[in-house]
Amino acid sequence: AQPSVATLPFKVADLGLAEAGRHQFRLAENEMPGLMALREEFGPSQPLKGARIAGSLHMTVQTGVLIETLVALGAQVRWASCNIFSTQNEAAAAVAVGPNGTVENPAGVPVFAWKGETLEEYWWCTSQIFDWSAEASRANEHWDGPNMILDDGGDATILVHKGREFEMAGAVPDATATDSHEWTVILDTLRASLQASPDRWTKIAAEIQGVTEETTTGVHRLYELAKSGELQFPAINVNDSVTKSKFDNKYGIRHSLPDGLNRATDVLIGGKVVFVVGYGDVGKGAAEALKGQGARVIVSEVDPINALQAAMDGVQVTTIESVLDQVDIFVTGTGNENVITVDHLLGMKHLAIVSNVGHFDNEIDIAGLEKLEGAERIEIKPQVHEWRLPSGRSVLVLSEGRLMNLGNATGHPSFVMSASFTNQVLAQIELFVRGADYGVDVHVLPKHLDEKVARLHLDALGVKLTRLTDEQAAYIGVSPDGPYKVDHYRY
Amino acid sequence: AQPSVATLPFKVADLGLAEAGRHQFRLAENEMPGLMALREEFGPSQPLKGARIAGSLHMTVQTGVLIETLVALGAQVRWASCNIFSTQNEAAAAVAVGPNGTVENPAGVPVFAWKGETLEEYWWCTSQIFDWSAEASRANEHWDGPNMILDDGGDATILVHKGREFEMAGAVPDATATDSHEWTVILDTLRASLQASPDRWTKIAAEIQGVTEETTTGVHRLYELAKSGELQFPAINVNDSVTKSKFDNKYGIRHSLPDGLNRATDVLIGGKVVFVVGYGDVGKGAAEALKGQGARVIVSEVDPINALQAAMDGVQVTTIESVLDQVDIFVTGTGNENVITVDHLLGMKHLAIVSNVGHFDNEIDIAGLEKLEGAERIEIKPQVHEWRLPSGRSVLVLSEGRLMNLGNATGHPSFVMSASFTNQVLAQIELFVRGADYGVDVHVLPKHLDEKVARLHLDALGVKLTRLTDEQAAYIGVSPDGPYKVDHYRY
Ligand SMILES: NC(=O)c1ccc[n+]([C@@H]2O[C@H](COP(=O)([O-])OP(=O)(O)OC[C@H]3O[C@@H](n4cnc5c(N)ncnc54)[C@H](O)[C@@H]3O)[C@@H](O)[C@H]2O)c1
Ligand SMILES: NC(=O)c1ccc[n+]([C@@H]2O[C@H](COP(=O)([O-])OP(=O)(O)OC[C@H]3O[C@@H](n4cnc5c(N)ncnc54)[C@H](O)[C@@H]3O)[C@@H](O)[C@H]2O)c1
Repeated sequence: AQPSVATLPFKVADLGLAEAGRHQFRLAENEMPGLMALREEFGPSQPLKGARIAGSLHMTVQTGVLIETLVALGAQVRWASCNIFSTQNEAAAAVAVGPNGTVENPAGVPVFAWKGETLEEYWWCTSQIFDWSAEASRANEHWDGPNMILDDGGDATILVHKGREFEMAGAVPDATATDSHEWTVILDTLRASLQASPDRWTKIAAEIQGVTEETTTGVHRLYELAKSGELQFPAINVNDSVTKSKFDNKYGIRHSLPDGLNRATDVLIGGKVVFVVGYGDVGKGAAEALKGQGARVIVSEVDPINALQAAMDGVQVTTIESVLDQVDIFVTGTGNENVITVDHLLGMKHLAIVSNVGHFDNEIDIAGLEKLEGAERIEIKPQVHEWRLPSGRSVLVLSEGRLMNLGNATGHPSFVMSASFTNQVLAQIELFVRGADYGVDVHVLPKHLDEKVARLHLDALGVKLTRLTDEQAAYIGVSPDGPYKVDHYRY
Repeated sequence: AQPSVATLPFKVADLGLAEAGRHQFRLAENEMPGLMALREEFGPSQPLKGARIAGSLHMTVQTGVLIETLVALGAQVRWASCNIFSTQNEAAAAVAVGPNGTVENPAGVPVFAWKGETLEEYWWCTSQIFDWSAEASRANEHWDGPNMILDDGGDATILVHKGREFEMAGAVPDATATDSHEWTVILDTLRASLQASPDRWTKIAAEIQGVTEETTTGVHRLYELAKSGELQFPAINVNDSVTKSKFDNKYGIRHSLPDGLNRATDVLIGGKVVFVVGYGDVGKGAAEALKGQGARVIVSEVDPINALQAAMDGVQVTTIESVLDQVDIFVTGTGNENVITVDHLLGMKHLAIVSNVGHFDNEIDIAGLEKLEGAERIEIKPQVHEWRLPSGRSVLVLSEGRLMNLGNATGHPSFVMSASFTNQVLAQIELFVRGADYGVDVHVLPKHLDEKVARLHLDALGVKLTRLTDEQAAYIGVSPDGPYKVDHYRY
């Protein structure tokens, strides 16, 4: 199916999938009690009325429920995926058609996302979420772009910052030989923009009231921008809400990693030796899931504290080099680069499975593999490739080294995403309504909102909370309504 | 055996136990790689030369290894226990005799501690760690007291602050009818001191360069002193090092809770229904240990975040009232009061086991039980009591409601305490050597020292750490030598 363009500006794979997407939205809504509670609580007061949100986040079924929650709270929204493979086409279609539109007359949200974008298409899609000219002319307003960003990984935020930077410099630099293909594409995208307008991104940056960022990598970029003084607007670090990083990263991966392995390979996990690179939240969830399947898990870490945690959890900790040829399945979850190198790939067992649930595809040196003399790629099925190596052995690479829990399975399940996205919506409300209270810096959500997110997910799990008596609350020095812990409490 | 006093000023139950204590020190040293590594690293440079440390911390075998580490680093030390019951008499004896002394000619450290002190004796012992006149006259110096405190629970710190406060007021207030017995004893102790000297504590306070505090309760007191502006010297909060609270509280309890249950009752844990009150670090360790034994664990929580964590870990979360009569073993770990009330006790199964690994004995309403008309206490063996209740049923109360992992077993194992105490020693060095860098406030150890503590415990577990390449380190924005995480990282 060809991506289609209609009068509602959008670009998806196939609008005809909207009904299938809508069915899935209904099921997901039942598993996303936090978002549904926010619709109920804030629907009447419309706190996001006037918000123009540019969203860059995996265009999945769960994100569809997020988008429609933002709309239910009064926001206007444009959306792109933050990953070339992660779009569920039926979800994108359902978002475009909307709850009240039809395939013939889509009345949803402008969404630019389909599964399997090229990098050129990806950055074109990302640019589209900043073009609010259609909305402006319909409303007879003079906006240039959105006034809020909802980001995952920081691509939307980076585009604005780099766009503005190059406009101030008056030119976009040429790509150098060592630049990644992706960076070249970004430069091309911004060069074309600079030719069309000398101040598009400068004006967009000035209109933005804030960004709420979903994940570790994006947060890291934000802290760097803040440190160098380049950050242009306040940011809320959603990732570091406890109900995000300690839930999504850990329990999400625990669910979707084995799911991805199964859908991709149907290989029995039990009994296998699995190597997990990194024992942060993602690595902890991965290790737990794999142990639960009866795998023998080995971990590598650079941080002695996390390494000690792994050891105390009964997991062997060693370097990847020292066990390369014993491992059946490799899983990376570091957010770092080249934690699996071409040399590592060459030393692996025949048909070892190599997969990434960290961040970018450079976590495994796929670029190096592609350049490797004598290596041959065979597509077993989409997102599952056998690489025949000059060593005479093969490795199975999932999702071309990109996030396999999204590429080979359907990403995190709705319940986990409900917690993450409830933080996102509360963060959008905070920045949009109380933005003046937040300086141009990176903030975390106040603890009472973090606790609220948790609270909204308890009933669905049959959890009965105990209430502190007034005496007990006084004894431990908190209010019976919370917050219950000091800010530096680690959970 | 009577407490004895020799030329080396000290008071312990029986010096003759020193050899038994020394054997245990040797075994413990093998399980305390962090402390032993510090002896090796800092023995030659003697960073604590000139430090006069007043220590108030459970006088156990592990503390003996801590004390001798401080001495090996150049410090002079005086010691008292921070709990009337927690002294291991053989450990106190071995500390007094010292590695090079004999029972006839003790040449260790002045220690004032024995198991089962009265409150009067306890505060006398605590006063002794501030009397450095013997050391001063031997060195021909004019000290009044120590220049460092190593505290657990804050009693030593409180004595100095209150002593100074009353000296400035010129009088110690009379105890009132509602004051606890313990407070009355403290007032008497300080009244006697004020009669003997009008400025003893003022001079002592002025000489102290800093305190390092071990535990939650003491840290809480320090933050209150800092907030009210009363704090007299810099403090390091050792409790909130990751390698303390996320190790000691969690992995320590995971070890010593089932140990305590077994030694106390020999009841099979597998298959039983166990109710854990509180799912903080202690509760998590307790639940993991009990699940590992095949128990079905139920948890209660007041904090929705911790409650959601328990649910995501596959544990039922409900109120204690709703399952009272189904539970075989109760474990409290909240640090709160009356989380098990007399009403709860009356509603329990016959011979339900009731135990506390949280904080004081008020976590279970033992005072209420003692007052209960018609209740009868039968000692099964020390620290294990059957309470026959008017309901016709009995409950088994462990350690009279006090910490059962210490009362029924031997508390935290050496390896866990090695991590905690390595933080203590590093904190002592920080404050003694770099005290000027620390303002009069409560600080946590810098992350690189927390990481160092972890690092020193890896070899013993056979952990092989991975080293970041320079490129990887730059990519994630850290140094290859650490620190590896932002300060708010939760582990
Ligand atoms: N796939 C998904 O759906 C998903 C979900 C959440 C987060 N993430 C991503 O996963 C990554 C990890 O997230 P997290 O929350 O666990 O972060 P984290 O910081 O908690 O954990 C990463 C760990 O990797 C370790 N590490 C770094 N470089 C290493 C190396 N060369 N070798 C071994 N270990 C190394 C770090 O010390 C750290 O402990 C991030 O990029 C995050 O954005 C992915
Ligand atoms: N026995 C030991 O050897 C040992 C070791 C370390 C700590 N501790 C003590 O254990 C206690 C807990 O320590 P922690 O590190 O787990 O603290 P924590 O704050 O991490 O956990 C305590 C938990 O109890 C919950 N809670 C409070 N009141 C409650 C109630 N009425 N009902 C249900 N839940 C309630 C809190 O929400 C919190 O999550 C502290 O007093 C600490 O000093 C004991």
